[in-house]
Amino acid sequence: MSGTLKAELGFVKTKIDALLKEDVFPDQVTPPELKEAVRSYPLRGGKRLRPALVLWSCAAAGGNMEQALYAAAAVEVFHNWTLVHDDIIDRDEFRRGVPTCHVTLRDFAEKELHATPDRAPKYGSDFAILAGDIQQAWAADLLLRSKDCGVNPALVIELSKRMHAVLNPCLVSGEALDVKFEYLENLPSAEEVRFMICGKTCALLAYSAYAGGAIGSGKCGETAELFGQFGSALGTAFQIQDDLLGIYGDEKTFGKPIGSDFREAKPTLLYIDAMSSLAPEKRKRLASFRGKSSLTDDEIALIRTLLDECGAKDRVIREAEKAEKQALSALRKTGNNEYTALLEELVHVLTDRKV
Amino acid sequence: MSGTLKAELGFVKTKIDALLKEDVFPDQVTPPELKEAVRSYPLRGGKRLRPALVLWSCAAAGGNMEQALYAAAAVEVFHNWTLVHDDIIDRDEFRRGVPTCHVTLRDFAEKELHATPDRAPKYGSDFAILAGDIQQAWAADLLLRSKDCGVNPALVIELSKRMHAVLNPCLVSGEALDVKFEYLENLPSAEEVRFMICGKTCALLAYSAYAGGAIGSGKCGETAELFGQFGSALGTAFQIQDDLLGIYGDEKTFGKPIGSDFREAKPTLLYIDAMSSLAPEKRKRLASFRGKSSLTDDEIALIRTLLDECGAKDRVIREAEKAEKQALSALRKTGNNEYTALLEELVHVLTDRKV
Repeated sequence: MSGTLKAELGFVKTKIDALLKEDVFPDQVTPPELKEAVRSYPLRGGKRLRPALVLWSCAAAGGNMEQALYAAAAVEVFHNWTLVHDDIIDRDEFRRGVPTCHVTLRDFAEKELHATPDRAPKYGSDFAILAGDIQQAWAADLLLRSKDCGVNPALVIELSKRMHAVLNPCLVSGEALDVKFEYLENLPSAEEVRFMICGKTCALLAYSAYAGGAIGSGKCGETAELFGQFGSALGTAFQIQDDLLGIYGDEKTFGKPIGSDFREAKPTLLYIDAMSSLAPEKRKRLASFRGKSSLTDDEIALIRTLLDECGAKDRVIREAEKAEKQALSALRKTGNNEYTALLEELVHVLTDRKV
Repeated sequence: MSGTLKAELGFVKTKIDALLKEDVFPDQVTPPELKEAVRSYPLRGGKRLRPALVLWSCAAAGGNMEQALYAAAAVEVFHNWTLVHDDIIDRDEFRRGVPTCHVTLRDFAEKELHATPDRAPKYGSDFAILAGDIQQAWAADLLLRSKDCGVNPALVIELSKRMHAVLNPCLVSGEALDVKFEYLENLPSAEEVRFMICGKTCALLAYSAYAGGAIGSGKCGETAELFGQFGSALGTAFQIQDDLLGIYGDEKTFGKPIGSDFREAKPTLLYIDAMSSLAPEKRKRLASFRGKSSLTDDEIALIRTLLDECGAKDRVIREAEKAEKQALSALRKTGNNEYTALLEELVHVLTDRKV
């Protein structure tokens, strides 16, 4: 990563951290543990990649980044409400090394309200549902406040409509498919998995870049559409790379245990492709690792060999490369300046992580 | 109820039923059972009281009701998403005589996905969380579409901000307090119960009348504020009346079993007042009925006597009357025309149900 990209990411993080920390929206929420829950994920930090997409797309389209600041904060809070509800659904216990929203609230109920262990988890998930509900409204309100930064009211309405009528149903449908896959007797098709990825990963990246491009160019026109295509393709490339790293990566640099998609029986494109290409015996062997609670190094090595020899690995790498090219092509059509250069470097950083 | 009120309510119902039934918003939701869940409550009908408040307040303020039609549909869908999430939280099985959203989805998982009885309820509540999430966005989108009916963009933004930054946190905080009351070792104070009612019942009625008044008068000014005060006071009067009917009413006309607030240990204003007024022995007697799974006719009669003799009944009746007067006073300050007359009759119908 270049010094410029690092510095610009740091700048975005500082701006967004400060805006969310000082924002008065959560102040009226009661009781206090609900207010804290509403603030928790947005204030946990992170790379603020989605806000960066908004701000840099705005600047790349020739706009003033200050005008896109509330839209940038909005996509971050939008991301967070979906995480709060996802974490309840996935029964995740930790996020960024800290207990998840519903777990924090469960612990609150046990400690402060002396709820019995059979009642406290219900308090935790009920309050976390409500916290996510309020955060969705917080995101909507932040976006509307773009009007106060000089974005024209008709454009604010267009972007808000796109958040509620396009982004939300697409993203939530993706999450629903992800849940449903676990209940299916058969594997989903590659097309269904692509649709799920489109919702869970691409929709918000596409929205972020689109909103930045629209604010930067002053309208929901061709420029905004190109930024949207850029964000969507970036999402696909990123997700496939993530799937590949999940089995071929190095645990230390990847940050998650290798093989966890197999252990959690997640139907990745990589797995779906291999299952439709392998000969019956080997297919059975690969399927036997799915949902297995632990995988030895030898088993990981065997999975890699199976994915290699049927060509699944090569095919999904090519799919990721194609998406990366689409992202760069859409970006280049918007112009060529220091911010398109920054976005181009971001694409490389996110997709060229080592396999 | 006068023929005029009946006819006008019927007109609102026809309009809103048709708009919601034909609305394309849910079409993009997938999988199909999630789409059906998103449409389910909004299409179950009901009296459409909140939309009526929007439309009549708009007309009473001198506006064209057609301009407020999307705002009217928006408050109805907003109401519905809160019900979907409330029903998960309260573990309710039926709404309007039909299985609740999460129960319908649980049954779908059992029948169509062959989910085992230990997994199906999780599918039901996970999908119902997501259905409510999409409905919240649907409500936001409907309101934004008011621009297409000629409401000026700046006003659409103001009303959207009020929905997200005022209504949502207030209503959801009310729901959270209601959940929390069940976990408290002591009774909440009357002030805390009033705050809960303000969120759960008054906030959306206030918003509905405010939005109608604002669209009718063309701005978020004094007229809109008066309609907001009217809706809020109406909510208080209605809720207290509902509490009274819950113990003094007639089961057939009330529609719910008498004493259910006691059985469910709901801290109503009536109960809180009595518990702070009764002598220790009688207080203990009254408290003994709280949370009791069934109540005999004699026990209901004894509860009534206890609430009567300590003056609790009279005091809350006076509180309801005061709220009713406030509602009518705010309404009269907005003017005097056939729609203020209709709203005035609505107040009487909602608050003069027989105790």
